[in-house]
Amino acid sequence: MGGDNAPAMVLDGLEIAATELPGLRYLLFGDRDLLEPLLDKLPRARSVCEIRHTKSVVTNDDTVSVALRSGRESSMRLAINAAAAGEAGGVVSAGNTGALMAMAKFVFKTLPGIDRPAIAGRFPTQQGSCVMLDLGANVDCDENNLLQFAIMGEVYARYALGIKKPTIGLLNIGVEGLKGNEAVRKAATALQETDLPVRFHGFIEGDDICAGTVDVVVTDGFSGNIALKTAEGTVRMFAHFLREAVHSSIPSRLGALLASPALRAFRARLDPSCYNGAMFLGLNGICVKSHGGTDPIGFANAIKVAHKLITDQVNDGIKEDYARFKAAGDKEQEDAAG
Amino acid sequence: MGGDNAPAMVLDGLEIAATELPGLRYLLFGDRDLLEPLLDKLPRARSVCEIRHTKSVVTNDDTVSVALRSGRESSMRLAINAAAAGEAGGVVSAGNTGALMAMAKFVFKTLPGIDRPAIAGRFPTQQGSCVMLDLGANVDCDENNLLQFAIMGEVYARYALGIKKPTIGLLNIGVEGLKGNEAVRKAATALQETDLPVRFHGFIEGDDICAGTVDVVVTDGFSGNIALKTAEGTVRMFAHFLREAVHSSIPSRLGALLASPALRAFRARLDPSCYNGAMFLGLNGICVKSHGGTDPIGFANAIKVAHKLITDQVNDGIKEDYARFKAAGDKEQEDAAG
Repeated sequence: MGGDNAPAMVLDGLEIAATELPGLRYLLFGDRDLLEPLLDKLPRARSVCEIRHTKSVVTNDDTVSVALRSGRESSMRLAINAAAAGEAGGVVSAGNTGALMAMAKFVFKTLPGIDRPAIAGRFPTQQGSCVMLDLGANVDCDENNLLQFAIMGEVYARYALGIKKPTIGLLNIGVEGLKGNEAVRKAATALQETDLPVRFHGFIEGDDICAGTVDVVVTDGFSGNIALKTAEGTVRMFAHFLREAVHSSIPSRLGALLASPALRAFRARLDPSCYNGAMFLGLNGICVKSHGGTDPIGFANAIKVAHKLITDQVNDGIKEDYARFKAAGDKEQEDAAG
Repeated sequence: MGGDNAPAMVLDGLEIAATELPGLRYLLFGDRDLLEPLLDKLPRARSVCEIRHTKSVVTNDDTVSVALRSGRESSMRLAINAAAAGEAGGVVSAGNTGALMAMAKFVFKTLPGIDRPAIAGRFPTQQGSCVMLDLGANVDCDENNLLQFAIMGEVYARYALGIKKPTIGLLNIGVEGLKGNEAVRKAATALQETDLPVRFHGFIEGDDICAGTVDVVVTDGFSGNIALKTAEGTVRMFAHFLREAVHSSIPSRLGALLASPALRAFRARLDPSCYNGAMFLGLNGICVKSHGGTDPIGFANAIKVAHKLITDQVNDGIKEDYARFKAAGDKEQEDAAG
């Protein structure tokens, strides 16, 4: 029931996913009276889903505490409960991000050793794409949070992007060791000294994200959210200026017509719906957040992200890596003590 | 002597400025043996400048403390000294940002009531341009720093952009009152309650920067630097993808040829050299930082920024506004006490 054009957008996305991911089945949580008439026009979606009726919905205006307190019968909460009970492999929602994170954390709990879950998303780069986290779940982060994000992001990039040995960069305002706040400096030291076979690149700057300097961009949720949205706004401005330029004269319109297949391919490379579907990393369950303003193709992509993370068992990878990291740290402390 | 292609780039920029800003004179601080042969080819630049010879130079690798301690005879320091002594109206440098800020702060001191100076720059938007600060001078900022940035940024936008009543936005990860860290929340409350006739828009998100939602974007130096560089990187990626698309086929090349005047105008709107020249706001003197990697046109733009700020007496505006703000605050405290 979440998202700007829900539930129609969600069901149209499900119709696409039903074709592209054969064999999957879905539990749909929401208002049967709204869902049934829409499903009448979507035969594929109908054939793969089962409605779990509820009238209660978390809105975008609900605060986290209101959602937690009075949203116990909401479509969002019941979907998370179903995943936690093993009825579903994971949850996909285009609803209120803060409420979704809080409920998922409350129900799923965090993975062993992870203090705070993070929102991880894919980002287009000149080389292909990268993973960035945290995109807004944690405003203030200390070095341990950043370190845990790095470990989780590395595993996520291996599974979700299929990169064998992803490189990790810490987002900062300069590449020299003395730059930045205490948290990034201490996290960098810890990553340099770790025994884990992670490829730590060091500090990166904002322009390194799109340049594709690293596979995993680690940052706090404040800067990460600002970087993500600034990039989105810049792409929109660029596209707006380009459209204006193309429409400014008859020769340029003709030129755009000649170049239209190339321009279509160009647009596709930066299409936000291709990158839709951010994972809540660090939870003991799979929860994928779709952009509220996405289109059905974007929502189908969020479903694909969830499907891949479930089948690849990404959380087992994180647990393993964190345990190895923890063991290495404990050994070091013992050695130092002994 | 600062910048990637210095001193040639600086002198070529001076040649442009000498034509576009008639009647100005310049003091050039640097190595006479390097400057003289270059000036031989630049008759206009030579006719308006006087060389103050020094061999000592602050490099980009120098830390702030090294620059402060052993850079007393450096071209950067001597230029700042000359401005402080009233020999020059202000300083323009394409050198080491941290060293320039530290030296300028040490020599000029800050304006009354301003705890920390900020780096303010212009940013392209869909509506024209906006002012953003801080772009990297202050990693950690409290609510008072942000409030001072807002007051300084408002004055700067009035003078530098010629906007009569600029709107101010606080960069955050959501527009609701509860979002963000303590500093932005407290600064928002103070800006809402101020008696100053500033137009406070409230919180904005990263995509509002390029959308042109406000005239002045206020943020801490960590997020501001990341937003600035992320936007720069996104523009580069977009341009790279567009070039690849245009060169992908013969019809699209032909199309680009037809549209070439429009594409040139399009490129000009996002040309970073148009936006070159960031002001160190809050100092008792004019200091403008040029991007180290800029071209001569960009450096000439940085000179124009300095010239405008000097002739408009931007610092008098800041002093006035801050005094009014302070007086309003003092009166409130008295009222509360009485």
